[in-house]
Amino acid sequence: MLKKYLLAPGPTPVPPEVLLAMAQPIIHHRTPQFEAVFAEVQAGLQRLFQTREDVLILASSGTGAMEAAVTNTTSPGDHVIVVNGGKFGERWTKIATAYGLAVTELKVEWGRAVEPDAVARALREHPETRLVLMQASETSTTALHPVEAVARLTRDRETLLVVDGITAVGVLDLPMDALGIDVLITGSQKALMLPPGLAFLALSERAWRAVANAKTPRFYFDLTRERENQQKHTTAWTPAISLVSGTHAALQLIFAEELANVFARHARLARATRAAAQALGLRLVAPECASPATTGIYLPDGVPGKIVGYLRDRVGVTFAGGQDQLKGKIVRIAHLGYIDAFDVVTAIAALEMALAAFGQRVAFGAGIGAAEAVLMEGMPPVPAA
Amino acid sequence: MLKKYLLAPGPTPVPPEVLLAMAQPIIHHRTPQFEAVFAEVQAGLQRLFQTREDVLILASSGTGAMEAAVTNTTSPGDHVIVVNGGKFGERWTKIATAYGLAVTELKVEWGRAVEPDAVARALREHPETRLVLMQASETSTTALHPVEAVARLTRDRETLLVVDGITAVGVLDLPMDALGIDVLITGSQKALMLPPGLAFLALSERAWRAVANAKTPRFYFDLTRERENQQKHTTAWTPAISLVSGTHAALQLIFAEELANVFARHARLARATRAAAQALGLRLVAPECASPATTGIYLPDGVPGKIVGYLRDRVGVTFAGGQDQLKGKIVRIAHLGYIDAFDVVTAIAALEMALAAFGQRVAFGAGIGAAEAVLMEGMPPVPAA
Repeated sequence: MLKKYLLAPGPTPVPPEVLLAMAQPIIHHRTPQFEAVFAEVQAGLQRLFQTREDVLILASSGTGAMEAAVTNTTSPGDHVIVVNGGKFGERWTKIATAYGLAVTELKVEWGRAVEPDAVARALREHPETRLVLMQASETSTTALHPVEAVARLTRDRETLLVVDGITAVGVLDLPMDALGIDVLITGSQKALMLPPGLAFLALSERAWRAVANAKTPRFYFDLTRERENQQKHTTAWTPAISLVSGTHAALQLIFAEELANVFARHARLARATRAAAQALGLRLVAPECASPATTGIYLPDGVPGKIVGYLRDRVGVTFAGGQDQLKGKIVRIAHLGYIDAFDVVTAIAALEMALAAFGQRVAFGAGIGAAEAVLMEGMPPVPAA
Repeated sequence: MLKKYLLAPGPTPVPPEVLLAMAQPIIHHRTPQFEAVFAEVQAGLQRLFQTREDVLILASSGTGAMEAAVTNTTSPGDHVIVVNGGKFGERWTKIATAYGLAVTELKVEWGRAVEPDAVARALREHPETRLVLMQASETSTTALHPVEAVARLTRDRETLLVVDGITAVGVLDLPMDALGIDVLITGSQKALMLPPGLAFLALSERAWRAVANAKTPRFYFDLTRERENQQKHTTAWTPAISLVSGTHAALQLIFAEELANVFARHARLARATRAAAQALGLRLVAPECASPATTGIYLPDGVPGKIVGYLRDRVGVTFAGGQDQLKGKIVRIAHLGYIDAFDVVTAIAALEMALAAFGQRVAFGAGIGAAEAVLMEGMPPVPAA
């Protein structure tokens, strides 16, 4: 018997309520029935993004929305600044380069957050900068970048701030309008607790003004056309209908829990995971700027990276490993989306036992005990006597 | 957010493979298609019961099969011996009494196993005894009764041994033919990992001879008529079609894991749970005859029985409480069916944190650490370097 536990930073587990919503018979998308669902999803996404702007729904992965953000706000030759502190930062550079933009990369040591001063310096050197492109949470290194501080640099000048919030929206408080984010992006298979297949993005008023003058070619990801359609509660191209129904159900779950509780839960699960790692004597990948979405942990000396495959294929517990320079050196335990205290307990138990299986001396229960001390904060009050 | 963890001794969690099989469109039961599925389920049940006899499938709960066992093998006024060591033993007495049988009850202290000598004595006093009625695993007290020893007393005399194996078949090795059990019963919502709604029972050759002369009234549970139909791979009355499809999928999972591994897993999970309880300084309800299906644990002084409702309604973890004389005094943590090491870890974490919430001093992780040391036996070998 091999029960499956999905503790990777996307896809994340899908709640039964969402699975059942998606298992409903398919309805046609050019109907009042679908438009009614779509309108409710749009309203929910505005609450989730904390914005008054339209949140557009794209049938694509998050990368599609990243491309849409770049192509709809630039013209060939425009200058952009990329915060590159990992695989997803690197992706901004690849997209910008593919469309003939001039890129200044701010390389950030993996596991570190970008220094707002470095962004300020680059903006001074390149006052013509059209976009600053960054991640809120850099999933490859489990580091959190200081979006709020960077937004303070961009919101009073012509430069637009484009934030990949794919593992941040619905995980931590990232109020788009209040912070002055110009483009905010997320994907379905993260905190939204859906299968992959949808991306969501919203543009500020000044970002839409930039769209009007942007000459970079686009067709499928033409956001002007998308917005025209979506303001009528339909889409330019065929929508992923069942995923939209699933989004409807997922947003209901999120708002039933309440956003503030969702953020507090993610923060608590992340602290518990970090406490467990430290109690086991393990080193964190991003100790000073740890994301509440995913915890990166260095494997101890002598434990090979294939422990990740062993856990997935033999034990049933899916973590992520490391990429590029971190390949074979770390595990990433995700705790975003439909994840609770007992998922963290399962993750730590799996880690403790797998480390022991790979010959490490492990004080069984030490990690979990440290986690439980944190998770107690989330235990509901006991009924009065 | 309240994720649900079902760790009660029935119903037990249903694997996704079984849920999907049951979600198939319904087929008609008077068709070759259904008969083909039914025939494969029958063959699988024979392997599960370890018998060459027909295993009959009833659309009822386990209690229906208990009644069928009594009514089909007796005539009014017949004498039966009931091993009553809990709520399910008591049920044998109620059924036998309802049909006008003469009952000798062997009362067993809750949490204890019956002494085979007590059965031998009762048989000597009542050589005319038609049936010995007992549980293999008495779910209300989490005690295991010595079926093999009792079978040695009955198999060489006229008396038939009827065993309620509802929380035993598929949990522990209970080979019907080899032990000489005359009627063996189980239900769908236990080790078979199905929803409630089906019961299964098999009769030995000599039990079928008794059926021919049994005058106790029955109609829905007329096993002679059932057997005639089921030997043609159909049922006397309308079968619970989707549950039969689910049984087909569940048996495939059981045999893919292999019966010996299924039994070893249940034994390991039970030992881990007991080790955890003891490491936490908690007392077991059935320390000397603990069932591998469910572990009963006394609540410490000062912790009220409503901790069970708190865990279920506020924390999402469903254990069973105590019944009758044990009401409010114990929790029963089930580990039968679709349950693995991480379910036990979840159960113990929930118990540790709930006890702390109710004001107990708990060494967080102590119980889980003890459990992990046992659960390590089930960890697969690591790949060669």
